[in-house]
Amino acid sequence: MDRSAEFRRWKAQCLSKADLSRKGSVDEDVAELVQLLNGREQFFTTSSCAGRILLLDGNINGFEVQKQNCCWLLVTHKPCVKDDVIVALKKANGDAILKFEPLILHVQCRELQDAQILAVRSTHGLEVPLSHKGKLMVTEEYIDFLLETANQKMEENKKRIERFYNCLQHALERESITDLNPKEKIIKKNNSYSRKKKRNREKACGKCVTEDNDKELENDDDPGVSVTIFPEDY
Amino acid sequence: MDRSAEFRRWKAQCLSKADLSRKGSVDEDVAELVQLLNGREQFFTTSSCAGRILLLDGNINGFEVQKQNCCWLLVTHKPCVKDDVIVALKKANGDAILKFEPLILHVQCRELQDAQILAVRSTHGLEVPLSHKGKLMVTEEYIDFLLETANQKMEENKKRIERFYNCLQHALERESITDLNPKEKIIKKNNSYSRKKKRNREKACGKCVTEDNDKELENDDDPGVSVTIFPEDY
Repeated sequence: MDRSAEFRRWKAQCLSKADLSRKGSVDEDVAELVQLLNGREQFFTTSSCAGRILLLDGNINGFEVQKQNCCWLLVTHKPCVKDDVIVALKKANGDAILKFEPLILHVQCRELQDAQILAVRSTHGLEVPLSHKGKLMVTEEYIDFLLETANQKMEENKKRIERFYNCLQHALERESITDLNPKEKIIKKNNSYSRKKKRNREKACGKCVTEDNDKELENDDDPGVSVTIFPEDY
Repeated sequence: MDRSAEFRRWKAQCLSKADLSRKGSVDEDVAELVQLLNGREQFFTTSSCAGRILLLDGNINGFEVQKQNCCWLLVTHKPCVKDDVIVALKKANGDAILKFEPLILHVQCRELQDAQILAVRSTHGLEVPLSHKGKLMVTEEYIDFLLETANQKMEENKKRIERFYNCLQHALERESITDLNPKEKIIKKNNSYSRKKKRNREKACGKCVTEDNDKELENDDDPGVSVTIFPEDY
């Protein structure tokens, strides 16, 4: 069986099952993006989350909170209010942690070049311990402030999903045109529509840095999309 | 020029320059790992950070803190004490944020299959707003607790770097053996040594979840390594 046919078969198999997220379905805010990708032969999505605010109750031994040994006290894809969190916190026994996680999208790609289009990742998260062994370590005023920040990030996240969708749509249209006109080779760079422009590393405020010789690493600021490339020996 | 020769030339060029991090040199705790990779023909590292705790002073308009419009108040690759943070916080004008970032390693790979060995990412970070428009929003007791958490993550991060180094070393040795015995095809899976075993999604504590139908997404828990695959038309 040739590769395209194999990939089509694999795609059909996966899309006939539920989304790999525990919810088993696609969030409203990422539905269009998922549809855009799945509508193209060379992609299919496996798991997705539009972005969420969650409160986890971690292991009381203080070991790192991992999803399998913690309890989800609250999770929402919409703006969150302080009272929801206060109520949820009352159920915490260990170290409760509030997290904001932006878009996550797992995409299977048939070809390497398509993975290069999509290799983006976001960094605008939050991960904030709120209680220790069941004891609340912050004030309600802080929780209010924190949620305001988390809700702003959720809003920003939505805008980025939209921006990413538009960029991706244009990129895929350009690619279709190229396929019809193979002599016009358009070089697809990662930077052109899927990553923010590289930051000027020299702009960091030198006088404020305690360790003057420390580093600035490039980070991507777009929604998080993880890609897997269809292996040649599949 | 054939691909191997091109890649060798590109590698030599890049390694003759400084590490792409602003520091321009490789952190002690990641030096062995960098050396292991650069010692193999098919890889070279471009930018690295062993892991760090940092305090950023963000934009006072409340927009997202991005590296180019914020001030680095403190950065350390070693355990951090409360007094260091308190002193640094006094210099904050905007929204100060404490972050823990685990290992980041950018690796150029000659072949796709080598990128598959290395495609891992960590999720055990911290991102905690501490002040708002220059006003401290948490107690010193909280800062103490937070730093204890951050320092524990730093320790855990070191262990993971070591574990990743060992796994990578074994994987590369097995690959060398395979190259000598092409008839013995060893299937290199991502899971075998570079990712944690998939979590049992059913283990989540159902009764505690406010939105019972929400999701569990798979996350990698190993040190963060980002890969770029050497494009065919380079």
